[in-house]
Amino acid sequence: MPLSTDLFDRLRAIVGAEHVRHTTGDLTPYARDATPLFDRLPDAVVFPADTAEVAAVLRLATEHRVPVVPRGAGSNLCAATVALNGGIVLVTTRMNRIREISPTELLAVVEPGVTTAALADAATAHGLLFPPDPGSRTVSTVGGNVATCAGGLRGLKYGVTRNYVLGLEAVLPTGEVIRTGGRLWKDVAGYDLTRLLTGSEGTLAVITEITMALLPAPADTGTGIAYFPDLAHAGRAVADILSAGIVPATLEFLDRSCVNAVEDFADLGLRRDAGALLLFGDDGTSDAVRRDLNRMAELCDAAGATEWTLAEDVAGAEALLTARRCSLPALSRLGSLTILEDATVPRPRIAEMVDRIDAIADRHTVTIATFGHAGDGNLHPTCVVADPNDTESIERAHAAFDDIFRTAIELGGTITGEHGVGAAKLPHLRAQLGDDQMQLLSRIKSAFDPARILNPGKLGS
Amino acid sequence: MPLSTDLFDRLRAIVGAEHVRHTTGDLTPYARDATPLFDRLPDAVVFPADTAEVAAVLRLATEHRVPVVPRGAGSNLCAATVALNGGIVLVTTRMNRIREISPTELLAVVEPGVTTAALADAATAHGLLFPPDPGSRTVSTVGGNVATCAGGLRGLKYGVTRNYVLGLEAVLPTGEVIRTGGRLWKDVAGYDLTRLLTGSEGTLAVITEITMALLPAPADTGTGIAYFPDLAHAGRAVADILSAGIVPATLEFLDRSCVNAVEDFADLGLRRDAGALLLFGDDGTSDAVRRDLNRMAELCDAAGATEWTLAEDVAGAEALLTARRCSLPALSRLGSLTILEDATVPRPRIAEMVDRIDAIADRHTVTIATFGHAGDGNLHPTCVVADPNDTESIERAHAAFDDIFRTAIELGGTITGEHGVGAAKLPHLRAQLGDDQMQLLSRIKSAFDPARILNPGKLGS
Repeated sequence: MPLSTDLFDRLRAIVGAEHVRHTTGDLTPYARDATPLFDRLPDAVVFPADTAEVAAVLRLATEHRVPVVPRGAGSNLCAATVALNGGIVLVTTRMNRIREISPTELLAVVEPGVTTAALADAATAHGLLFPPDPGSRTVSTVGGNVATCAGGLRGLKYGVTRNYVLGLEAVLPTGEVIRTGGRLWKDVAGYDLTRLLTGSEGTLAVITEITMALLPAPADTGTGIAYFPDLAHAGRAVADILSAGIVPATLEFLDRSCVNAVEDFADLGLRRDAGALLLFGDDGTSDAVRRDLNRMAELCDAAGATEWTLAEDVAGAEALLTARRCSLPALSRLGSLTILEDATVPRPRIAEMVDRIDAIADRHTVTIATFGHAGDGNLHPTCVVADPNDTESIERAHAAFDDIFRTAIELGGTITGEHGVGAAKLPHLRAQLGDDQMQLLSRIKSAFDPARILNPGKLGS
Repeated sequence: MPLSTDLFDRLRAIVGAEHVRHTTGDLTPYARDATPLFDRLPDAVVFPADTAEVAAVLRLATEHRVPVVPRGAGSNLCAATVALNGGIVLVTTRMNRIREISPTELLAVVEPGVTTAALADAATAHGLLFPPDPGSRTVSTVGGNVATCAGGLRGLKYGVTRNYVLGLEAVLPTGEVIRTGGRLWKDVAGYDLTRLLTGSEGTLAVITEITMALLPAPADTGTGIAYFPDLAHAGRAVADILSAGIVPATLEFLDRSCVNAVEDFADLGLRRDAGALLLFGDDGTSDAVRRDLNRMAELCDAAGATEWTLAEDVAGAEALLTARRCSLPALSRLGSLTILEDATVPRPRIAEMVDRIDAIADRHTVTIATFGHAGDGNLHPTCVVADPNDTESIERAHAAFDDIFRTAIELGGTITGEHGVGAAKLPHLRAQLGDDQMQLLSRIKSAFDPARILNPGKLGS
């Protein structure tokens, strides 16, 4: 049901006519996010300037039972910001001020539309570090990071977004503005709504301000690379590193298909005969970094690495990390449609999981390469489909991912480590959480959103 | 309304007759927790052996609309485990097995009745560290730590309990068993019920299993002590330490009244003329610890410390830490009734807050000394009342704390940094969170506990 003229007039009165879009051409960029195969034109896109405008839009939407989908950059990979039922897409990109960076209090206060990179750069300029570093960081917004509890390469040592959110201002779908947490590391006054909103994927409230903890920037970083005959050997090195008391800032792997795709793409001089590539790195004081890097190299060697190298300097480290960073573009080039997933398993089961992913890919005759975060078991099996119009191939890819998600759950893992559930994985959530918990999520959703207007068809549905 | 004979019979059938208490003598130890001035005899105390028994007790209680108060050691300081409306106290101390410690996966799986110290010791035996260290750690249970999101001395560097809870098994008041999270550092499948239950103070579900992240134990620790003319100078040292990029494992202060009480109590040779005492410490590799300790001492000196010392060895460090550890017993000795609070303010406002606490104490003619965690602004203003039957003195103490909580909120802080809300601070919660958020908490409570049997009169009421 399209929105009424009256409703458009009221939206324009709230945010200003120039901040309401309604033509098909203007709506089209907001029909999709970074997730392939999900596509729905909203009825309107609005760009509020502040909390009061967000609240007015939400009150109006609740009154008229119009769906509202909050959206930052739309860089999520789980169709969390596709307006499945139409309605209003509420874009936060105009709310993009960094309000404060406090080196004394080790925190930042930002509006939700600030990009992750802008926050990270502002922190760096003050000698501070914002640890979460999702792959989309140059475009993703901090509001989106909070909404999805974004992760990244540093998860094991530094945790994910939830570990840094100190306080939130958020608007309930019924228009009330709440403030949760604050500027404190310790605050147990009330249920932990700060963390409940973190990762709620825009289904409970619209986040309008974030207070984010920062850390002192480490003095130095270092990176090394090791090749192994297979992932089982790499997994042994990972276990030995952690058992030795090292919690590295970086511990990433690429499987053989990935190594070859990256080498085809970027010609980095990687060993094509390797069964697995492990990137390891740490940050801290220079002497600690050197010592840990040398120790990790020794442990890789002892675990059966066929070759390893330590980067001599920052440029050398960047060159090594390129192998990991261009995994996705390298794989994407192999076909027209790339489905990037993030099934995650306990660390000791990574090799077993990748073996089973390979067997699943063979069984369904699809191409799947896997890279990911060895430190926290967060895998990114990536399926490449040659022709996006080949529905039969796409169905085989979906069938393969169904098996992959089932396998992740069977191995004590999760259907999503850091990307989120969105519309893409909602059909798989029940298998992980069970009926009782699914019903509980729905009741929690109703506690925030009695008219169920906020991001329908996603978490809590 | 006392419980019926039939209900007692059914409780005995569930947990066994020897695990149901009902005589006044048997109930009395469960009428109170570690919070003064709250006291209510429950109708029954039950000690379930496992998850199935917990679920059966809860189903029965929901069916008969009988309150259930979950309890670990009862060491909380906010009357979170007092059965305000009578009913059943459900004690988890029989569920006290450490099921697993995994050095490879850096985690432990424990039942809720395991003591904090038992988990910490088991971790140490495997070369690992369980960072949260609440003052009650020798008696407190891990289930209670999770229920209150317990903190401790290492909050700034290591975070609090919520940062370590990876997964929970919990029983809803209606008897369904849910599992949240798991063994993974990254898991965003569904709303973050793991964190929502953490700090929910036994009002949403009964926690029956906890998967807790651990860290490699640091190789070395070091501690120093510095005296300042007043807390403002100590506060400057704290700001300078953090601005220098050091995040110390320990950063504790005692005000003048505390220093003198401790010296009276333990004769440690502390400087009685000091306006404030700052304990600072770090852990990590030996060279990093030495470097950071020396740097912190320099910064204290530059900020106006009148004297400072570094402990030579572990025994010396323990001696210094004794000053902080015996603050509460030292103050308790000054009267018969000790009210220990934990109003918390942003770090730069600690000195201002303590000045205002002193002024409030004078105004209400009560004795309040303050110690606490300078790193995270978590203060422990402690009021000592000579005679526990002197209701007029107690009323003045309450009036003083009313002012203290108001002041903490006014300075951007919280009424509770780590102790919890319980029954003791529920009357103050609305001033911090506002009506809209209080109503939201109540709706969330109903989503878990439709009959509202679980720990009534506490969070979510």
